[in-house]
Amino acid sequence: MLKDEEGSPVENFPDRYIRDRTDGTLYMRTKVPVGILGATGSVGQRLVQLLAKHPWFDLTSVCASDKSQGKRYKDAVNWTLSTPIPDDTGKLVVQTCEPNIPCKIVFSALASSVAGTIEKAFAEAGYVVISMAKNHRMEEEIPLVIPEVNADSLELVKTQKFSKGGMIVTKPNCAVIGLALAVKPLALEFGIEELSVVTMQSISGAGYPGVPSLSIVDNIIPYIEDEEEKLETETQKVLGSVKNGVVEKYPVKISAQCMRVPVTEGHLEAVSIKFSAGRKVTLEEIKRAWNEFSPPVQELKLPSSPVRPLIYFEQVDFPQPKLHRELEKGMAVSLGRLETSSLFDCKFVLLSHNTIRGAAGGAILIAELLVKKGYVFW
Amino acid sequence: MLKDEEGSPVENFPDRYIRDRTDGTLYMRTKVPVGILGATGSVGQRLVQLLAKHPWFDLTSVCASDKSQGKRYKDAVNWTLSTPIPDDTGKLVVQTCEPNIPCKIVFSALASSVAGTIEKAFAEAGYVVISMAKNHRMEEEIPLVIPEVNADSLELVKTQKFSKGGMIVTKPNCAVIGLALAVKPLALEFGIEELSVVTMQSISGAGYPGVPSLSIVDNIIPYIEDEEEKLETETQKVLGSVKNGVVEKYPVKISAQCMRVPVTEGHLEAVSIKFSAGRKVTLEEIKRAWNEFSPPVQELKLPSSPVRPLIYFEQVDFPQPKLHRELEKGMAVSLGRLETSSLFDCKFVLLSHNTIRGAAGGAILIAELLVKKGYVFW
Amino acid sequence: MLKDEEGSPVENFPDRYIRDRTDGTLYMRTKVPVGILGATGSVGQRLVQLLAKHPWFDLTSVCASDKSQGKRYKDAVNWTLSTPIPDDTGKLVVQTCEPNIPCKIVFSALASSVAGTIEKAFAEAGYVVISMAKNHRMEEEIPLVIPEVNADSLELVKTQKFSKGGMIVTKPNCAVIGLALAVKPLALEFGIEELSVVTMQSISGAGYPGVPSLSIVDNIIPYIEDEEEKLETETQKVLGSVKNGVVEKYPVKISAQCMRVPVTEGHLEAVSIKFSAGRKVTLEEIKRAWNEFSPPVQELKLPSSPVRPLIYFEQVDFPQPKLHRELEKGMAVSLGRLETSSLFDCKFVLLSHNTIRGAAGGAILIAELLVKKGYVFW
Amino acid sequence: MLKDEEGSPVENFPDRYIRDRTDGTLYMRTKVPVGILGATGSVGQRLVQLLAKHPWFDLTSVCASDKSQGKRYKDAVNWTLSTPIPDDTGKLVVQTCEPNIPCKIVFSALASSVAGTIEKAFAEAGYVVISMAKNHRMEEEIPLVIPEVNADSLELVKTQKFSKGGMIVTKPNCAVIGLALAVKPLALEFGIEELSVVTMQSISGAGYPGVPSLSIVDNIIPYIEDEEEKLETETQKVLGSVKNGVVEKYPVKISAQCMRVPVTEGHLEAVSIKFSAGRKVTLEEIKRAWNEFSPPVQELKLPSSPVRPLIYFEQVDFPQPKLHRELEKGMAVSLGRLETSSLFDCKFVLLSHNTIRGAAGGAILIAELLVKKGYVFW
Repeated sequence: MLKDEEGSPVENFPDRYIRDRTDGTLYMRTKVPVGILGATGSVGQRLVQLLAKHPWFDLTSVCASDKSQGKRYKDAVNWTLSTPIPDDTGKLVVQTCEPNIPCKIVFSALASSVAGTIEKAFAEAGYVVISMAKNHRMEEEIPLVIPEVNADSLELVKTQKFSKGGMIVTKPNCAVIGLALAVKPLALEFGIEELSVVTMQSISGAGYPGVPSLSIVDNIIPYIEDEEEKLETETQKVLGSVKNGVVEKYPVKISAQCMRVPVTEGHLEAVSIKFSAGRKVTLEEIKRAWNEFSPPVQELKLPSSPVRPLIYFEQVDFPQPKLHRELEKGMAVSLGRLETSSLFDCKFVLLSHNTIRGAAGGAILIAELLVKKGYVFW
Repeated sequence: MLKDEEGSPVENFPDRYIRDRTDGTLYMRTKVPVGILGATGSVGQRLVQLLAKHPWFDLTSVCASDKSQGKRYKDAVNWTLSTPIPDDTGKLVVQTCEPNIPCKIVFSALASSVAGTIEKAFAEAGYVVISMAKNHRMEEEIPLVIPEVNADSLELVKTQKFSKGGMIVTKPNCAVIGLALAVKPLALEFGIEELSVVTMQSISGAGYPGVPSLSIVDNIIPYIEDEEEKLETETQKVLGSVKNGVVEKYPVKISAQCMRVPVTEGHLEAVSIKFSAGRKVTLEEIKRAWNEFSPPVQELKLPSSPVRPLIYFEQVDFPQPKLHRELEKGMAVSLGRLETSSLFDCKFVLLSHNTIRGAAGGAILIAELLVKKGYVFW
Repeated sequence: MLKDEEGSPVENFPDRYIRDRTDGTLYMRTKVPVGILGATGSVGQRLVQLLAKHPWFDLTSVCASDKSQGKRYKDAVNWTLSTPIPDDTGKLVVQTCEPNIPCKIVFSALASSVAGTIEKAFAEAGYVVISMAKNHRMEEEIPLVIPEVNADSLELVKTQKFSKGGMIVTKPNCAVIGLALAVKPLALEFGIEELSVVTMQSISGAGYPGVPSLSIVDNIIPYIEDEEEKLETETQKVLGSVKNGVVEKYPVKISAQCMRVPVTEGHLEAVSIKFSAGRKVTLEEIKRAWNEFSPPVQELKLPSSPVRPLIYFEQVDFPQPKLHRELEKGMAVSLGRLETSSLFDCKFVLLSHNTIRGAAGGAILIAELLVKKGYVFW
Repeated sequence: MLKDEEGSPVENFPDRYIRDRTDGTLYMRTKVPVGILGATGSVGQRLVQLLAKHPWFDLTSVCASDKSQGKRYKDAVNWTLSTPIPDDTGKLVVQTCEPNIPCKIVFSALASSVAGTIEKAFAEAGYVVISMAKNHRMEEEIPLVIPEVNADSLELVKTQKFSKGGMIVTKPNCAVIGLALAVKPLALEFGIEELSVVTMQSISGAGYPGVPSLSIVDNIIPYIEDEEEKLETETQKVLGSVKNGVVEKYPVKISAQCMRVPVTEGHLEAVSIKFSAGRKVTLEEIKRAWNEFSPPVQELKLPSSPVRPLIYFEQVDFPQPKLHRELEKGMAVSLGRLETSSLFDCKFVLLSHNTIRGAAGGAILIAELLVKKGYVFW
C-alpha cells in the first residue's frame, strides 16, 4: 500500500495527498494555482468572486485583452457585482492571454472570436483549460461536462494530443446546463424522446456591455444568436454516454426557441417532454426522480457542489428568478409547475443561475472534479 | 327597393341608414351612445382613450364601483395612460353599474367576480353587452368573437333569450386573440393538429393595481391563474365554426405555459404547430398565408380595423414588444422567427397589444361589426 | 409694395413666399430640403421620425459613418422607436458626412468627437447647420437657442464668418432645455438668484448602444460626464440676453447633480430656486407666470410649437415620465409639486422629453424659426 | 464586587451575565426571546431573514393580521426575498398582535394605521417595543435612535411611564437613517446650517404589495406621502442632543424632495450642505471626517454593527444601488461624488439599504444596543 512521507496510508488523507492515475506517484496537495483568461468580463468577474477564499484554488493570474495589460485588476475592470472586488485579486496586475502565467488550471471566459486559438495554445503548453467558450464544445475528443450529468465523459481527455498534461475541458452553454440537469434523472429513469423548450434568458448571459439598455428595458428580444442550435446539439452530447472513447449522442429530438428578457440574472425555461418509456409516467414519478437524483459526484462533496442540485417547488407560481436564482449559492436548478400536457407527457418550468451554475460556478465545479479525480498535478 | 325618407335607395347611403335585419325597418344612423362598465380600471381607461372621437360611438356613460359613484371621471380614475384623459369624458359623472344608463351598447371591463350577474342584467334590460370578462365566454349561445377570425359566429345571438334586443357578445382572453389571429389563416389553408405555446405576458394584462412591482421588477412569474386553460379551450371555440346555431370546436390539441414578464404592454408568444395537411408545408407557404390573409371583415373597413391584421417581419430579432406593439394603432399582430422544428412542422413568435387588440380595441371592433351588420338599433 | 409673380401682395401669402432680409429678394416657398448628419443614431432616428410628413421640410439626405455608407437607411439603422421607419426615408441611401449633399439645412446629431470639424465644414460650404452636439455651444458667435426662451439670440449668426449663407446654430443640452423653459418666465417676472437642481435622466439620453443594461436595470448611476457643468454654464447662456451682438450671461448661481435612472424617455428634474425679486413671491404668482407664459415665438405658430409649452399639474404625484413625456407631441415641459422651501423661495419638479423637446424636436423647432424669420433661402 | 454563581467576578463574563441598572440584580444571559409584529409584510420578512441564527436573539413569535392567524408562517407569507424562509420560522404558527406572546422584545413592522395603539399595548404589558412605524417617533419621551448617531438618547426611556420594564424605542424613517449617518460626523466637526436633499427611493420602501408595477416600471413618481416632512423633522431630532431628559433638536434648516424610482432596494440621496463652521471646509476634511467616524457604539462590537458604517468611494460614478447596497451586510452607508457647490459648501451622494439599514437591520441594532446597555431583562 502506498504511504505518505509519514508512513500513513494515503487513502486516509484524501484531502492532503493525491495519486497520479497513470503512474501512481503521490503528490502532496496544496492549493492549486489557477488563472483566468478574460478576467475583466462579466463571467470573468464571477470567477473572481467565486474563487475568493476557495479551499482548493489560489487565483494567481488574471489575463485580459491588451488594453488592460499592466493595470491592476481593480483599475482595469468595470465591476458589476454586488460584492466588492476581493482585495487580493484587485491588486493583481492584469496580463495578456499568453501561456506563460504561473498556474496550472486556467478558466477561459474568452469571447469565442479569440477563445479557439488561445485555449489551444494554453493546452499545448501544458495547462488544464476549463473553457466556457463555445469553440471546442462539439469536438470529438473534448469533454462537454456537467459533473452531475456526465462526469465520466472526462475520460475523453485521454484521447487529446496535448503534451505536458495539457487538456481542454468545456462546459456547455448556460441554458443547456439548467436543462440537462433537470432532464438527466428523467432520461435515466424514463428515457426522453422529444423535448420542446422556450428559454427566457437574462441580460447577464450576454456579457458586458452586452445588451444595450434601450434594447431591453420594457422589452423582449426573441432571438439569441446560435442559441437555439446550441440547445439542440449540446444537450444531446451532454446527455450522451461515452463508449470506446467516443461520445454517443443521446437520441432526443429537441426544438428550442430562445428569448432575451429584462431580468438581470437567471434563465427560466418552459419545457415539455415526451418520454420513451412506452408507458404512462405519472407526475409523482417525475417528482420522485428529481427529488432522489443523487449522481455519483455528490459523494465527492466537492466544495462547489450544491447539497441539492435539483429543488422542486409545489407552490403554484414558483420558481422565479428573483426568489430562487441564489439557492445553493447559485448552483441549484429550481423546478416547478409540473403538469400533464395534451401534446407531451409533461410540462414544467426550470430556473438556473446563468453566470454561476451556467458559467463560472459550473466551470469551477469541473475543475474541482478534475482535481479530485486525479487529472491535475502541480 | 327600400328607400329612405328622401326617396334615395338605401344601399347608396350605407353610412347614414341601416335596415333592421328582422323586419326591414330603416333607421337613420347617428352616433351610437355607448357606456363602459368598469370604466376606471386598466381596460376601462383604454376604452375611454380609444372611444375619444370615435366616428360611430358617443361615450355617454361611465360606470364603476360604488366608491367612485358621483365623482367626475377625472377625479375617480387613477389614469395610467400616456395620453391625457379626454376632456369630455373627464367631466362625466361616474355611475353605478345598473342598467339604467342612457346608451345602447355597453362595454364591460368588469372583474369576473361581478361581471357575470351585471352583464346579464344589462342584456335583460335590452343593452348590447360587449364583454371582456371571462364569465360567459364558453356558454353555448354566447359568441366568442375576433372579427377577422369568426365574424359569422355573431349569429349565435339569435339563440339568446334576452328581450328588447339585448344580447351578450364576448371577446376572448387577450393571449388567445393574438394566437387565434396568427393561426387562423394556417388553420384555413393547412389545418392545424397540434399547437404548443409559451406566452410572455405583460403586466398591464393583470389590470391595476395588478402585479406588485416588488414581484415583477427583475423577475418572471411562471403562472397566471386559469390562463393556460383559457388558451386551450377558448382557442378551440374561436377557431370553430357555427353549424346549425351551435359552435363546433376546432379539433386542435393545445398545450400552453403562461408567464408574466416585466414588460408594460404587449404579449409575446412562442408557438409551435403541427399541421393536419398530410403533406409538407413550406415556410414560404406559411408566410404567404399570413401575407394574403384577408378575411371578409376587412372589406367592411370598420373604423378600428387594422389595414394589415398580420405583419410578418423577416428581421431575425423581430417582433419585439417595445418596437411593434403600437403597429396599426395596436390592432395588428406582429409575426417573426418562422422556422422549421424538429418536433413540429414550424415554430414562430407572435406579438399583440394586450390592452388594445387583446381587450379594448378588440371589443370596439366587435361593436363596430355588430353595428355594420345590423345587429344594433337605436 | 413687393408683389409676387401674379401681382398679389406678398404679405398675403406668408406660407408661399419669403423675402430675403438682406436684399429684399422674393423667393417662392417650397419645402426646404434637409439632411441629417448621424442619422442612424438614437437622436438621428428621432429626427427621421419627426421629419416624416413635415409640412415645411423634405428629408432628402441621411448621412452616417463610413460603415453605413451605401446601404439603404432601413438596412443601416438599428431602429429602436415604436413607430415604423417612414417608407421614403427607409429607401434613402446613406451617405458619408461630407458637405456635398443636396439640401439646405442639416441637422447634426453627430457624436462630439467628430461634430466640431464636420459641422464647420458644412457651414463653410453654405449649409445652415442645426447642431445638437456640445462642441460649439459656448462659442461667442454661436446662438444657443430654445425658441421660447431666447429666439432673439439667433441674430448672433450675423457675426459668423461663413460664406454662402452658411451658419451654425446650436440647441442646448437636453437637461438644460427643460430647465431653462421652466425657469424663463420666473426669471422674467421675479429674477432668479440661485438655482439648485438634481436631474434624473433617462437612458435614451445616452444614445445607442449607450448605457449597458447590466449597468442600469435595478440601478441608478449618479454620474453623467460633463453634465453638471453643462447645466450650470449653458443655462446661464440661454437665459442671457444679446447686447451689441454679444450674449450677456444671466447671473444666476447654479448647483447641479445629475443621475442616470432606468427610465426609457423623459428627464425629471427636482429644482429649488431663490428669487432676486427682493420680496416674497407666492406660489400662486409662480403658477400664474407659468400658465401665462406666452413668448413671441408662440405667435408664429410654427409647426412643431407646442400649444402649451409649460403645463402645471396640481395632482400631488405629477409629473411622471411615463404619463406626461408625450404631451404636446413631446414638446411640452410638465411641471408639478410646487412648494415653499425652508432654504429657497420655492421647490418644484419638471419633466421634459429628452429626445424630442430636448433634442430632435427642439432642433426642428429652431429650423422652423430660422425659416420663418427669413434666415434660410433655397 | 458582585459575583456570579460560580464566584467569578461578573465583569469578566460580559457575554454571559448582565446586571440590572436599577437594582443591580444579576441575570444570566441566554438568548433573548423576540417577536415580530407585522411579520408577513416586507419589513417583517427582512426581520425574519436577519434574525435567523442571530447570536443573541431567538425568534419565538410571529404576529400578523387576523387573516393569517393560525397558519404556519411559510403558508401565510408571500415571501419576496432571495434567501429561503428559515426552516424554524417557517413552522411557527402566526398569532394575532396581542400582548400575550412569550418573548421580551418585539419588533414592530406594523402599518401606521394600527401601530400606535398596538405598540402602546405591548409596552404597557412590559414588552420592549422596537418600532419601525412613524406613530411615536416625534413624541417627547420616545427615543428616535440610530446607534451610531445618538445612542445616548436611549436614556429617554427612563421618562416613559410603562410598567414592568416596558418601553418604546423607535428608529427613524428609512431615508432619514442614511442621511443622518452621513452627516453626523460633519455636524460634529463643522456644524451644519443648511441641508438640501433629493431622495431617489426604492420600491421596497413602500412595502408589499406597495407600488403597482404599472405605476413604476419605466417611470418615476415624484411624491411619497409625508416623506419630505419626515426628512426635515426626524433628522433634526436624531441629530439633536439630550439635555435634562429632553431632546434638543439640531438647528439645521432642511429642504427635501422625495422620488420613488424603479429600483428594488437601496435609497440614493443627492445632498448639498452649508456648514456653520464659519470657515472654508475642504473636501479633504470632509472625507477625513467620514473615514475617521468611529462613534462609541462601534466599541461594543454589536453583532449587527458594520465594521465601517460609512464608506467613501473615489470612483466617479459610485455609489450605485445595485453595486453597494449589500456592503457590510446592508448596514453601511456608501458615499461618493463629493464636490464643491456654487450654492452650498459641498454636495455629495449617499446610498443606504432601506430595508436593512433603514428598517429591519437598524431596528435589530437598536435591540442589540438596548441589551448590551442593560435595558432589557429576561
